[in-house]
Amino acid sequence: MSTPVYNRVALIGLGLIASSMFWAMKRGGLAGDVTGFAKSEASRDTARRIGLCDRVCDSAAEAVADADLVVLCVPVGAMGAVAKEIAPHLKAGATVTDVGSVKRDVIDAVGPYLPESVHFVPAHPLAGTEHSGPESGFAELFDNRWCLLVPVEGSDPEAVAQLRALWEGMGANVDEMDADHHDLVLAVTSHTPHLIAYTMVGVADDLRRVTDSEVIKYSAAGFRDFTRIAASDPTMWRDVFLTNKDATLEILGRFTEELFALQRAIRTGDGDHLHEYFTRTREIRRGIIEAGQDTAAPNFGREVPKS
Amino acid sequence: MSTPVYNRVALIGLGLIASSMFWAMKRGGLAGDVTGFAKSEASRDTARRIGLCDRVCDSAAEAVADADLVVLCVPVGAMGAVAKEIAPHLKAGATVTDVGSVKRDVIDAVGPYLPESVHFVPAHPLAGTEHSGPESGFAELFDNRWCLLVPVEGSDPEAVAQLRALWEGMGANVDEMDADHHDLVLAVTSHTPHLIAYTMVGVADDLRRVTDSEVIKYSAAGFRDFTRIAASDPTMWRDVFLTNKDATLEILGRFTEELFALQRAIRTGDGDHLHEYFTRTREIRRGIIEAGQDTAAPNFGREVPKS
Repeated sequence: MSTPVYNRVALIGLGLIASSMFWAMKRGGLAGDVTGFAKSEASRDTARRIGLCDRVCDSAAEAVADADLVVLCVPVGAMGAVAKEIAPHLKAGATVTDVGSVKRDVIDAVGPYLPESVHFVPAHPLAGTEHSGPESGFAELFDNRWCLLVPVEGSDPEAVAQLRALWEGMGANVDEMDADHHDLVLAVTSHTPHLIAYTMVGVADDLRRVTDSEVIKYSAAGFRDFTRIAASDPTMWRDVFLTNKDATLEILGRFTEELFALQRAIRTGDGDHLHEYFTRTREIRRGIIEAGQDTAAPNFGREVPKS
Repeated sequence: MSTPVYNRVALIGLGLIASSMFWAMKRGGLAGDVTGFAKSEASRDTARRIGLCDRVCDSAAEAVADADLVVLCVPVGAMGAVAKEIAPHLKAGATVTDVGSVKRDVIDAVGPYLPESVHFVPAHPLAGTEHSGPESGFAELFDNRWCLLVPVEGSDPEAVAQLRALWEGMGANVDEMDADHHDLVLAVTSHTPHLIAYTMVGVADDLRRVTDSEVIKYSAAGFRDFTRIAASDPTMWRDVFLTNKDATLEILGRFTEELFALQRAIRTGDGDHLHEYFTRTREIRRGIIEAGQDTAAPNFGREVPKS
């Protein structure tokens, strides 16, 4: 057994990320003892049943008492309220971190509640699946994925280094970035793609002239790829868009500008414009595969059950 | 060995669909003898090297001579020219079909060249991968996927039934549909999703404030899903948009209308609208998985190589 990175870790919120962190910490022997809390009693019961966390507590205050690391794993819009609730119960010298998909808003919401005696090191693991809840986690989720640390002004370098060691121990590559750049990068690589996928799926569902059953039967022609991310947790994503409003709206503006240019090329029959555009976008895919961020197997190597 | 459905089949164009058809026909013993032709000499050489087709011919005319079934597997924009070229060489009683992603335009382009003595039964297998070329095919591509037959006025029922038997033998489920409805359904389930994916990838590639290397490194947060279909063959897709212009523009119009409504909800902070929308889109995903058209495994079950 390696030495744990933290003696006591508290996970507040027990969804996909928290449950994956628990299994990844166990796999790596990274935490001596892990407490957990979820607002929903059903989630706490599930966690107890499947052995998620060494101890599931009935309040956030109880879970964070004596913790060396507190990880806020709740939807972005709930971070402030949770911080306020746990603040009086935090141990001096503890580190508070989070896993929210938006960083500026979380820093502004959480920071003011935290006492001087604790370290605040916001973070964001760029990993997930379309599934949610305490049973959706698995130890390998962060393997070879990136985790972005977003230290705030005055973050203690040792506290940052310790959190980095935890994420690396859970299999992630770690980068540091400032909050505003993080929120812009994520608007491009995650938030806008999710909104677009949600929109496309909503449009297909809404059309009177094409039935849902046709959309479903014939989805392998491309559409089904969009439905995966459009099946992600609605509360988490509502909060992402409400709290990363400016960057998302900026990228959406760029997106519609570009879409209108392609639409115009279709309308005017400008095949060269289309062909040149579609050739350029192939390169990015190659880069992602070479960087080990996706599989080269056709159709993501997905195996669809035979009927 | 089962009895072949056709004694002699000619594949014109040797890309992903044609090569998958060849291997699927061999797997099922569905064709006695398969000839093939590709415009590019390099593709013909590759086909000969990997044993794709029983005989690779140096002209389309030679390939279709004596064929009972001729399958046009070229980009939609090239169908008319190919039909004109092969028409004088078609055997009386032969069936001509195609695999194009657009049907009205192909029917209008191909139909007028075909002699009265042959049957024309347009078709479209809803299957593919992001890869292209003669080496990208595999026998399982059509298993449990749908193939849409789009008989034209006066199509011989026996010729349609025979083609249906071939597609079923290659593993597909077969439906019949009229050309205009086909083009609308595909605009929803395939063409518009592809255009949107191309656009999103193009936007990410274009931004000055977020580098390509950031886009690539952090793509697992959602973006990478879009890059798969945006890596599809540029010529094929240029032709799809140019030839299914009306339906694509109609669905794009619906898409931007819906996107603007969500954009407005973000701007005004209407969380209920977003949450309700994102909850509804989950259902479609469930339907697709229950219909056996996608995997329930997280992240499509993709395996990303460890670095």
